Amino acid sequence: MRDMLGREDAVSVAEAQRRMAEKTVFRELPRFSLPLEDSYGRVLAQDVFSPENLPSFARSTVDGFAVSSSDTFGASESIPAYLDVVNEVFMGKEADFALKKGSAARMPTGGMLPAGADAVVMLEHVQSVNDLLIEVLKPVAPGENVISVGEDIKKGELMLGKGHLLRAQDVAALAGVGLTEATVFGKPAVSIISTGDEIVRPGQPLLPGQVRDINSFNLAGLVLENGGVPVRKGIFKDDYDEIRGVVAASVTDSQLVIITGGSSVGTMDMTAKIIRDLGSPGVLFHGVTLKPGKPTIGGVVNGVPLFGLPGHPAAVTVCFDLFVEPVLRILSGLEGKEYMRRRTVKARMAKNVSSGIGKEEHLRVAVEERTGELWAVPILGKSGLIRTLVRADGTVAIPAQARGIEEGEVIEVRLF
Amino acid sequence: MRDMLGREDAVSVAEAQRRMAEKTVFRELPRFSLPLEDSYGRVLAQDVFSPENLPSFARSTVDGFAVSSSDTFGASESIPAYLDVVNEVFMGKEADFALKKGSAARMPTGGMLPAGADAVVMLEHVQSVNDLLIEVLKPVAPGENVISVGEDIKKGELMLGKGHLLRAQDVAALAGVGLTEATVFGKPAVSIISTGDEIVRPGQPLLPGQVRDINSFNLAGLVLENGGVPVRKGIFKDDYDEIRGVVAASVTDSQLVIITGGSSVGTMDMTAKIIRDLGSPGVLFHGVTLKPGKPTIGGVVNGVPLFGLPGHPAAVTVCFDLFVEPVLRILSGLEGKEYMRRRTVKARMAKNVSSGIGKEEHLRVAVEERTGELWAVPILGKSGLIRTLVRADGTVAIPAQARGIEEGEVIEVRLF
Repeated sequence: MRDMLGREDAVSVAEAQRRMAEKTVFRELPRFSLPLEDSYGRVLAQDVFSPENLPSFARSTVDGFAVSSSDTFGASESIPAYLDVVNEVFMGKEADFALKKGSAARMPTGGMLPAGADAVVMLEHVQSVNDLLIEVLKPVAPGENVISVGEDIKKGELMLGKGHLLRAQDVAALAGVGLTEATVFGKPAVSIISTGDEIVRPGQPLLPGQVRDINSFNLAGLVLENGGVPVRKGIFKDDYDEIRGVVAASVTDSQLVIITGGSSVGTMDMTAKIIRDLGSPGVLFHGVTLKPGKPTIGGVVNGVPLFGLPGHPAAVTVCFDLFVEPVLRILSGLEGKEYMRRRTVKARMAKNVSSGIGKEEHLRVAVEERTGELWAVPILGKSGLIRTLVRADGTVAIPAQARGIEEGEVIEVRLF
Repeated sequence: MRDMLGREDAVSVAEAQRRMAEKTVFRELPRFSLPLEDSYGRVLAQDVFSPENLPSFARSTVDGFAVSSSDTFGASESIPAYLDVVNEVFMGKEADFALKKGSAARMPTGGMLPAGADAVVMLEHVQSVNDLLIEVLKPVAPGENVISVGEDIKKGELMLGKGHLLRAQDVAALAGVGLTEATVFGKPAVSIISTGDEIVRPGQPLLPGQVRDINSFNLAGLVLENGGVPVRKGIFKDDYDEIRGVVAASVTDSQLVIITGGSSVGTMDMTAKIIRDLGSPGVLFHGVTLKPGKPTIGGVVNGVPLFGLPGHPAAVTVCFDLFVEPVLRILSGLEGKEYMRRRTVKARMAKNVSSGIGKEEHLRVAVEERTGELWAVPILGKSGLIRTLVRADGTVAIPAQARGIEEGEVIEVRLF
């Protein structure tokens, strides 16, 4: 539905997200090689195939004796298998001998299996007759207590795919197969444009009627946490030409543009007009059935996603989480599971909270431990107050069709 | 209980954690000032009191008319209150006039309330008679639609305490009260010492019987993720004097020391002996009823915590999460809620998994979405394989007293 000015009704959160996801396309970012030490948290820009087998030799997983398993078949405490101890394997050294039938070699955990051996008997299942003879009290199967060549990672195998986020263990695996660098994507640049005649740069004296720029610092931190590079473009007057100029430049020099400013209808309408005037497809939604964050605007111009966020700090945080973050994920080149990024705890609601039908409400809550249980305590206060975010540990969503949450109900807190 | 060599029985995970927490003391790290832009994710080194009121003037939260609320008492659609429009407030400008009884001034959202006004009537509750006269259709209470001076943050108020982790919104709040820098703690240095005769530096050719250093890359990433500075001290032979030398140096030049190496009893015993020989109180536990990670050692020497971790990659990850991370939190100067760091999802177990009574088992699992529900699929394989960690999204703990988890049971996955 559209009103007299041609404006569409507010859409649901899911519909707004769907529209942005549909029109946001990952455009390959520059790729470069980083030493493994500097590659943690980066996104792989190409598939990685292992250049070697891990391990490159058959390794023992226990302290014991390398044997030919067939020599131990049928062995028991009453009728042990007798084997000659003919050699010893040392850690990090080649087992440069071949084991003959009926013989065994001492093995450390991690040692190299000699030729002729296909299993290792654990020390606990061996009795020493003398230095040169052992009794094996329990049979071993072929391959028992052994990691075979390439059992961990095979030479030529696809280890990690393009778009994979490099976690600690992924970098460790790359090191394990002899790599020293990773080819990763650059991080998407996110332009942050603060607007408002009343907004003052940090460090400037504050005159009556003026306030300091809060939102660009909040947004820059959220961008950093989510793998982007924040580019704070500065503070711009509520003037069509001035804002249009910086938005037009940002669409060409960054992968994502966030405009934050007043919550008044006039300011948001101007932002929407600029996005519409700059190119196609322009505004994808203007207004969401969401509290806080109703006047949010989302759009795409020449393949670059843009958001107009209302100026209230709590709205900025909620809208970033719901709308900007999923788009930033796509732009980062990440291929992965969305739910992997969640940081949540279950908690009981500490108070009855009511909510209007028809809009999704995101409450700020502090999480407190009381007698071994976690409780979510709503932080009340206008969404224009930064203190409500500072006091809060996370948010609780009340779905659009719910009338509220009852005290004691178990809910999920999305942690900051 | 102690065995013949004077070694104590393995202790529970909780007991091992308790002993480390008891003896680990936060020793003040160097503090320094960082520009706000660079302070995200850092730990505040001092309490911050606000240097000014936020906002510094009474602000309107809506578009409308500033009024004296008493002029609107009793107003209704049938009997509106008539007010003279005498002035207009502009964004970012001082409201340099005083409102007389019976009059009103146009207000933008965020505008400064003039003297004489104590509330704002929303545009929606006003009818314009002409440019100079309005009908107010609904009364406003004193303070309605207004954020008062200091309502967000009061001058002199404790905004953020020493030990607080600076999140996006916290940095934004500091900017909001006119600060441009934050005094933060340096990050604790964590020495990572790889041991083993078979371990080879990255980039070196691999001879038969040798393997590459995997664990120091895994540990360095985990240290980074948890706010420490990893210092990879290199690879050392399984030799008492050599390892003792680097451990002794690390105890003086870092806040935390991790020694990782073979899982053989001999290697772990040597690590324990070094910790014991270096100072007091020495080894606090050696052996935990945990799988993987049974041979783990924890100790403190001259106030510096040390860990000896078994060489299996999965054991390294599990032991870091259970033992090293809580200690690193203390050493970082963080004052906060432990559960805030959790990244978990609920999922259903995809398979029956059995577990021995008497030890806590940590399974690696992949999380998969199937028909709208999350399922945890166990990644089987020896704990010596790095691939099990690469394929996994997180871990599921089976308590020491449980016999396992049944298929379909809802469990909590601790995400990597």
